[in-house]
Amino acid sequence: MKLTKDQQQEIKDQQSQKNDTKRVIAPELEKILYEAIPALDHGFVRVVDYMGNDTSIVQAARVSYGKGTKKVSTDSGLIKYLMRHWHSTPFEMCEIKYHIKLPIFIARQWIRHRTANVNEYSARYSILDKEFYLPSSENLAAQSVNNRQGRGEIIDGEQAKEVLGLLKKDAERTYSNYETMLNERYDGSKIDENKKGLARELARMNLTLNTYTQWYWKTDLLNLMNFLRLRADSHAQYEIRVYADIMLESLKKWVPITYEAFMDYRVGGTEVSANGKKIIQKLIKGENISYEESKLSKREWNELMEAFDLKDKLI
Amino acid sequence: MKLTKDQQQEIKDQQSQKNDTKRVIAPELEKILYEAIPALDHGFVRVVDYMGNDTSIVQAARVSYGKGTKKVSTDSGLIKYLMRHWHSTPFEMCEIKYHIKLPIFIARQWIRHRTANVNEYSARYSILDKEFYLPSSENLAAQSVNNRQGRGEIIDGEQAKEVLGLLKKDAERTYSNYETMLNERYDGSKIDENKKGLARELARMNLTLNTYTQWYWKTDLLNLMNFLRLRADSHAQYEIRVYADIMLESLKKWVPITYEAFMDYRVGGTEVSANGKKIIQKLIKGENISYEESKLSKREWNELMEAFDLKDKLI
Amino acid sequence: MKLTKDQQQEIKDQQSQKNDTKRVIAPELEKILYEAIPALDHGFVRVVDYMGNDTSIVQAARVSYGKGTKKVSTDSGLIKYLMRHWHSTPFEMCEIKYHIKLPIFIARQWIRHRTANVNEYSARYSILDKEFYLPSSENLAAQSVNNRQGRGEIIDGEQAKEVLGLLKKDAERTYSNYETMLNERYDGSKIDENKKGLARELARMNLTLNTYTQWYWKTDLLNLMNFLRLRADSHAQYEIRVYADIMLESLKKWVPITYEAFMDYRVGGTEVSANGKKIIQKLIKGENISYEESKLSKREWNELMEAFDLKDKLI
Amino acid sequence: MKLTKDQQQEIKDQQSQKNDTKRVIAPELEKILYEAIPALDHGFVRVVDYMGNDTSIVQAARVSYGKGTKKVSTDSGLIKYLMRHWHSTPFEMCEIKYHIKLPIFIARQWIRHRTANVNEYSARYSILDKEFYLPSSENLAAQSVNNRQGRGEIIDGEQAKEVLGLLKKDAERTYSNYETMLNERYDGSKIDENKKGLARELARMNLTLNTYTQWYWKTDLLNLMNFLRLRADSHAQYEIRVYADIMLESLKKWVPITYEAFMDYRVGGTEVSANGKKIIQKLIKGENISYEESKLSKREWNELMEAFDLKDKLI
Repeated sequence: MKLTKDQQQEIKDQQSQKNDTKRVIAPELEKILYEAIPALDHGFVRVVDYMGNDTSIVQAARVSYGKGTKKVSTDSGLIKYLMRHWHSTPFEMCEIKYHIKLPIFIARQWIRHRTANVNEYSARYSILDKEFYLPSSENLAAQSVNNRQGRGEIIDGEQAKEVLGLLKKDAERTYSNYETMLNERYDGSKIDENKKGLARELARMNLTLNTYTQWYWKTDLLNLMNFLRLRADSHAQYEIRVYADIMLESLKKWVPITYEAFMDYRVGGTEVSANGKKIIQKLIKGENISYEESKLSKREWNELMEAFDLKDKLI
Repeated sequence: MKLTKDQQQEIKDQQSQKNDTKRVIAPELEKILYEAIPALDHGFVRVVDYMGNDTSIVQAARVSYGKGTKKVSTDSGLIKYLMRHWHSTPFEMCEIKYHIKLPIFIARQWIRHRTANVNEYSARYSILDKEFYLPSSENLAAQSVNNRQGRGEIIDGEQAKEVLGLLKKDAERTYSNYETMLNERYDGSKIDENKKGLARELARMNLTLNTYTQWYWKTDLLNLMNFLRLRADSHAQYEIRVYADIMLESLKKWVPITYEAFMDYRVGGTEVSANGKKIIQKLIKGENISYEESKLSKREWNELMEAFDLKDKLI
Repeated sequence: MKLTKDQQQEIKDQQSQKNDTKRVIAPELEKILYEAIPALDHGFVRVVDYMGNDTSIVQAARVSYGKGTKKVSTDSGLIKYLMRHWHSTPFEMCEIKYHIKLPIFIARQWIRHRTANVNEYSARYSILDKEFYLPSSENLAAQSVNNRQGRGEIIDGEQAKEVLGLLKKDAERTYSNYETMLNERYDGSKIDENKKGLARELARMNLTLNTYTQWYWKTDLLNLMNFLRLRADSHAQYEIRVYADIMLESLKKWVPITYEAFMDYRVGGTEVSANGKKIIQKLIKGENISYEESKLSKREWNELMEAFDLKDKLI
Repeated sequence: MKLTKDQQQEIKDQQSQKNDTKRVIAPELEKILYEAIPALDHGFVRVVDYMGNDTSIVQAARVSYGKGTKKVSTDSGLIKYLMRHWHSTPFEMCEIKYHIKLPIFIARQWIRHRTANVNEYSARYSILDKEFYLPSSENLAAQSVNNRQGRGEIIDGEQAKEVLGLLKKDAERTYSNYETMLNERYDGSKIDENKKGLARELARMNLTLNTYTQWYWKTDLLNLMNFLRLRADSHAQYEIRVYADIMLESLKKWVPITYEAFMDYRVGGTEVSANGKKIIQKLIKGENISYEESKLSKREWNELMEAFDLKDKLI
């Protein structure tokens, strides 16, 4: 990640602010506010604003349940209770805003989470930066044989070189032709003073999907956790997981109590179907039950056994 | 509006906070933060948190439109441009949270704005306060004869007294019977130690719709303006307008530049249909055009003439 | 439930329609289309329109996953897979619309599900029907001692009579005074020709929360299942569960394969936290683990033991 | 647009369905149901399902406003009234589902309308079709000089040839290298039996933004009109306008009365700000008012004069 001088100055200016407020604050999050945390080869994650902290969740829950919640003696106990019972609205009372730089093919995956506010850099108005994502060699994986959406073994040696070469050359060539069509270079300088340039809204179509874009992305705490549960998961595509992992760290700094409950009940938890429950019950009673008797599909059986770390039962 | 000692203390504690933050602030809004501004006879509006200010809108717009927006020299010019052209996403980058006490029949109208986060006091868990809305005499209006959802002349004299008497007596009696059924008074004390009380989730059904409830209500700036455009309008029910007017004041303190643009383009503006445009064009050319030739309905004609203050053309 | 002659005629007219369509249909749902299924003492549930069936989910999933999904040989297998892995968007491709009559205090609970479209009968425009909910004697429960939002033992004998008497008398009196203030009876007839009536938008505040209202409520299949998971659950308030149970029946007629998967993975399933998983693992291995060692709260321990039907471990 | 044999057969099968339903139908829309209407060079729009018609809007409005609406004698009068006064919820009672094939850079613009349900073809699972958008020569426009997001004059002659050549060659080369990396051709055949292929979720990043994707897109009538107002507008990018125009035609076939009102009040209408109203009032009175006195920006002045066709006042 390389920031321009302008960007570095902007971040410095933002970080040197010191304002008085009567609002609640999140001290650990304040420490990294505005900082550009590197993600992939040219991307970053920046927390640029937030509203509320763990106490805001408690405050909202207590207005809902009135004097009733006074019995739960601690904030931590109440937040755990809310998380366990899927009470959603108190978690919606906190809000966070990120500035993110990411490859377009990841942006397309990300945007499917609709319950967020987004302002993306517009290639109708402006020229996109000359930056594209190239996977590092340890992330250059073959298509998985078992899992249609997963990755298998690492590709290495000659084939790896070839793949990286193609990705690099194609991105550079299409970007260079983008400039030619625009009759303008990425720094805004004209190429041929006597020529018109193609409309930006058209020229952009020549770029490859690993070109970087950027956006401001704002969401409430509940929807952030929904996003992280899916995208910080081991089944998520590696490239989006890199971002989700950084955001998970910011969650910890922002709302540490909620973070603990989230890790226990969501990230580390599992779901068991009605049929799955019957099988677990038998196993607890010490009864034997085989896959064949289980009425589960093979995949479902294995998922259940893995969830409870019963490796000898995998088939 | 009468706050309990506990509430007064809570507000005092919140207001005496003084925290350092690197976030942007809204200095005028900070001054009234947490304050309970009276609304109707027992209600209030409190701003309890916010995120962003006018500069956040500009910041988001500039990331979208890139270098392009640098030409618009001032923040004010850019915000006006965004408002005029219905650019919505930059206004979604600011967020505000209110604590509001309001009668249930108004809460039911309010909740139809779905794009907000809400935590309402739950009468399943707790006992509702013994407070109900009674209109002041200048707001005791008869049903409008022309407008099915509007108010007509003021009701006064004997009939006014009768109406207010009925509202008061019914609210008090149903509340008293609510306590009887609960076997518990509003302050939590038991009535008859040897009796069970009816479940709260059932007993509440005996309350009248003018009973007060309260909630935390959080929304982004765009949706706040959508709410205010409808509810601070002269066609809105008086009782919700009281709240909207207070919130309009908080909008002005929070984002003064956006407020100006909002008043000019939304609140003070009007819409003209394709047919309406033709009529205005003729009037500008000095041509005569009568209602009969206009192809508009009577109501539509009058709305158009009123919008442009052409009172002699009303029919 | 008593329908007016007009309503009966409207339903008859709707049911006698026979239209040709190229759209997919749900044959079992067609059989009960428009029918008013009674709920509580005066309410009803009517399915008035729908879009799509089980095959629409499969069709949407196959466009997403392309040739990949062709391997899953059956629609049923694919729908189970989607449900198990929380794939949400294919279930959003079906839509259903209900006409529902329900008490206001239940409508207030219901409306908190924001992801639906609603048109409610407006008491600003029109006079509400003279109908209020009175619980049947087997549903007249005392406040639970353990659970702040639950019901405990049945209230019977003299106290039951007293409660029902109060509910009935208060609803009737407030409704009668509503008519007096409106100077209009529920059938639209004037009471005193020489008097003005109070504006409807004001008079309605005198009604009790068990007065019936009605609305059209439209939602997609995913959000319908979210609603039913919460509201057909044993922890939901009885009065809303009555509606949810009827709607669960309509779900079965509409999308029978999805219904099966929903019952297995959602309604009949359970969630286990990271800490809970460790305990279940020990129990499967035959190790002893007591509540004291578990690090769970008492409530959480009991919920876990109940989920797996380990009644001897309840504390 | 070229459909595969499989697609042609699927459409034929769908169109030959003839089902009985008690639901309301839209006869004109039924005639084009499932048909693939060509858009751009390889895209299409297909209506694949719908729910409701003009009468559904009226039905929902009448439940809201009760007996009150019976005074409006015709469905058409009521729908016009609802449209004029921005009543939104009755229009949410109708739903439509499209199957659309479109270039990725247009899909990225489209998806910013968040209030719709989407299932997109996934390039994580499957190989994208070998089809890319190339503008026809009359749509090859230069960047506008005045408008940062607009198009100016047509580019023609040698430069046009060059641009089209670059777009074509880059799309073909990057697609060919996509196949090489996948070790698989677009038809699914392996290239080198002894080689692994790069994971699909990675290889896709090499494609250019004019590659076609496809999705199912479902929305309610209100949000469809919001989409069309922006995207069938002359300021929208040509490539998305092509789709919006086709969808506008389907709107006319689906809900003809609503379509009329939409064209009059939304598409053909205009908005006038508070300041703009004062100017129009002066013009109607025959008073002179110049741009200099108007307090409007130049751009705003011109937009106002254009809205009322006052060409001699443009500056």
